[in-house]
Amino acid sequence: MSELAYTPIHTLADYLRSGELKPSALLDAYLQRLHCHGEKLHAFVEVYESDACAAAEVADRAFAAGQRLGPLHGIPVAYKDLLHIEGRVTRGGSLAREKSVTTSAVVERLTAAGMITLGKTHMVELAFGSWGTNTYSGTPWNPWDLETHRVPGGSSSGSGVAVAAALAPAAIGSDTGGSIRIPASLCGIVGLKTTVGRVSNHGAIMLSRTLDTLGPMTRDVEDAALLFDAMHGPDVRDARTLVHAPVDVMSGLKRGVEGLRFAVLPEDALGEISSEVAHAFAQSLEVFRELGARIDTLAPPAGYAALAEATGKILATEGYEEHEARIERNDPPIDPDVRARVLSGKTISAPEYIRIMSERKRLAHEMDVLLRDYDALLLPTTPLAAIPVSEVDQRVAPMSRLTRAVNLLDLCALAVPCGYTVDGLPVSLQIVGRGYQEARVLRIGWTFENATDWHKRTPALT
Amino acid sequence: MSELAYTPIHTLADYLRSGELKPSALLDAYLQRLHCHGEKLHAFVEVYESDACAAAEVADRAFAAGQRLGPLHGIPVAYKDLLHIEGRVTRGGSLAREKSVTTSAVVERLTAAGMITLGKTHMVELAFGSWGTNTYSGTPWNPWDLETHRVPGGSSSGSGVAVAAALAPAAIGSDTGGSIRIPASLCGIVGLKTTVGRVSNHGAIMLSRTLDTLGPMTRDVEDAALLFDAMHGPDVRDARTLVHAPVDVMSGLKRGVEGLRFAVLPEDALGEISSEVAHAFAQSLEVFRELGARIDTLAPPAGYAALAEATGKILATEGYEEHEARIERNDPPIDPDVRARVLSGKTISAPEYIRIMSERKRLAHEMDVLLRDYDALLLPTTPLAAIPVSEVDQRVAPMSRLTRAVNLLDLCALAVPCGYTVDGLPVSLQIVGRGYQEARVLRIGWTFENATDWHKRTPALT
Repeated sequence: MSELAYTPIHTLADYLRSGELKPSALLDAYLQRLHCHGEKLHAFVEVYESDACAAAEVADRAFAAGQRLGPLHGIPVAYKDLLHIEGRVTRGGSLAREKSVTTSAVVERLTAAGMITLGKTHMVELAFGSWGTNTYSGTPWNPWDLETHRVPGGSSSGSGVAVAAALAPAAIGSDTGGSIRIPASLCGIVGLKTTVGRVSNHGAIMLSRTLDTLGPMTRDVEDAALLFDAMHGPDVRDARTLVHAPVDVMSGLKRGVEGLRFAVLPEDALGEISSEVAHAFAQSLEVFRELGARIDTLAPPAGYAALAEATGKILATEGYEEHEARIERNDPPIDPDVRARVLSGKTISAPEYIRIMSERKRLAHEMDVLLRDYDALLLPTTPLAAIPVSEVDQRVAPMSRLTRAVNLLDLCALAVPCGYTVDGLPVSLQIVGRGYQEARVLRIGWTFENATDWHKRTPALT
Repeated sequence: MSELAYTPIHTLADYLRSGELKPSALLDAYLQRLHCHGEKLHAFVEVYESDACAAAEVADRAFAAGQRLGPLHGIPVAYKDLLHIEGRVTRGGSLAREKSVTTSAVVERLTAAGMITLGKTHMVELAFGSWGTNTYSGTPWNPWDLETHRVPGGSSSGSGVAVAAALAPAAIGSDTGGSIRIPASLCGIVGLKTTVGRVSNHGAIMLSRTLDTLGPMTRDVEDAALLFDAMHGPDVRDARTLVHAPVDVMSGLKRGVEGLRFAVLPEDALGEISSEVAHAFAQSLEVFRELGARIDTLAPPAGYAALAEATGKILATEGYEEHEARIERNDPPIDPDVRARVLSGKTISAPEYIRIMSERKRLAHEMDVLLRDYDALLLPTTPLAAIPVSEVDQRVAPMSRLTRAVNLLDLCALAVPCGYTVDGLPVSLQIVGRGYQEARVLRIGWTFENATDWHKRTPALT
């Protein structure tokens, strides 16, 4: 059962197509693991067991009748609990308990592709935090250390843990400053931060109208590509999705990286990085060189270093605007760390906000021009591996230091496992592409993954 | 000479083409009027007499050689003093005296079309004020009352007076909340507020990055169309101009309004309007009905009334962001009324700004949907005619009450003379179109103008 649960979706899809596996049997494998590990790992805020079983039986009959929708048909998926599903509660990491009256575009699309909604996953309240902690709803347990409670990374904490522990083959997260890539990094899975406008945000609780994106979290890159393929595309309810035509990510996925050109930032632009992360990153660059890619150092545009503060201010300002009534009322109480973060946006002046947004645009343009000469920018995803929850300092956010500029500059990025610390904690490589270059970062990630196999290691759960 | 100066550009172009008039003779007519009336009317902050004469002589030779560029070739034009011309001072209504190092896109385009730069016109400092007053640089004199100093309307005050008094056949203004249409209304001329993205803002001192637009101020609608035709189109230095293809405004100009459908707002949505304005407006509607148009009452979207405050806040916030250093330094001193207005933006919070901008977008979309059923929305341009400068209350802005929503909702609009008060002061009709519908509002304006001839009346200057 454990082996089946850890099988990637693209292989499960083969089993389902051939008939050797039924959707309901696959679902059972995950439900069994949820019963064994669900309580300790605290990844799911709610499992829709009976509805999922009913959907799996419908899928069983469809497969039996030869009515297969595609590679995602019959595959369970978990949703970060900021995506609305009509008739279900959307908590957004809070204690709020209202039922949704709408269904998010992403849930619609994946359901239409045949995926089975397994449940909703825990998250940092309002999706505003990179450690993955949650004072009132509880912090998911990073499955790579079953002794010490280590942070899962946030804000898509439960989604990261669910996939890492094979409680679900895939989960959807949101990424505003790193919220998909950070838990992907700390939990040793694959996470894709899409470009704003690729995936409809309709029906998602928002943090930042400017920077919010949705994306897949999976066990390998091909699975991420399959989910991205199904998730993205135009939706009139989110006008930003109407600008670019959908992209074919699957056909070029396995074309390799020979002759590609990658950029890395000078050391001082990365800031402090743990020696284990630095080592794994250096080894990753070596892998790419051996695969025939060229790697050059790229000086980031002036002002890049000052961006970090700017991202926090945009999130605080836009988050406060979006959630003002709840933040002010504070009933039910909001995670105090999150509330303090959002309240800092209340007093940011409009002229300062305009200046930040204008500087953001200018830098995004400069970066876009710089990156035209490269196929990707390579960075570590997080500067360190998962730390114990007891050591978290909520006043700082080191985990998002290497991810947030990707959001601010309208880029896309893929986090892929690239090694492990001596304590067996995952380390992650971040492959950053220009806006709308998801196909390219997925191709690079797939090639790296298949040359390294880091993604095949699993945590020591039974 | 007076008759020549009051002749519309499209007729002057015929004279120039036939050879019965030379560009230098035409320029002389305006220079003579400037010598007679310039000091009293205080429309021009600077006249580039020698450069204009040199340019006119070049045009003389070009015409003599049969090298005519088009209908604007050899025609003088005045620029609001927020448009940069390399090597010239751009004051923006202030006491600042730095020379420009760039030339604005509009000046480039009109110069390329053969127009002769006559000089720069007075304006409200920072273009933030609708009365047309200027404490330090002086307030242009509305030419329709030579006894009492009445307001010209602002902020393109000097441009309005220059054209009304035939000191120039055309002037360029900017319109952020009504700054072209208000002086056009109070001075009895034609003013076109273009849609954001139609005319490049490159090289203009900005007030509001969101709402600023440039447009022509002329003696009749055909002239406005000629200038718009030459001014608009893509410019890589203002990315918003790259969205829409240029439009042919000339060929459909004289197609009439038979069968067109116009909207008017219910009386309570207009607020208080002087009886003379209301009378002229009602008569204008009658003119359209006689021309075969249908007129229906359209209830504006909810929240429309609250927009007025929002516009002021956007201008204050974005104006403060743009001019923070000067506003804070206040050396040279800034018009105290303007400074107070801009300073109010310093303390507007970023969440409030975001909320206003979001509400603006929502209302713009609703209005766009509502207006799809109509060819135009008809309104008075200003709720009253020009008042004496001595009666101005700087704390209120009644003159922009009917114009600012056009900016806020991303529409375009044409102001055309539609009558006179018993005291002989002009009254104006505002023809509002959906975004990018300049060709349609110009066609409607042309038809109205040719059915009424209000635009042919001239002030009692010698």
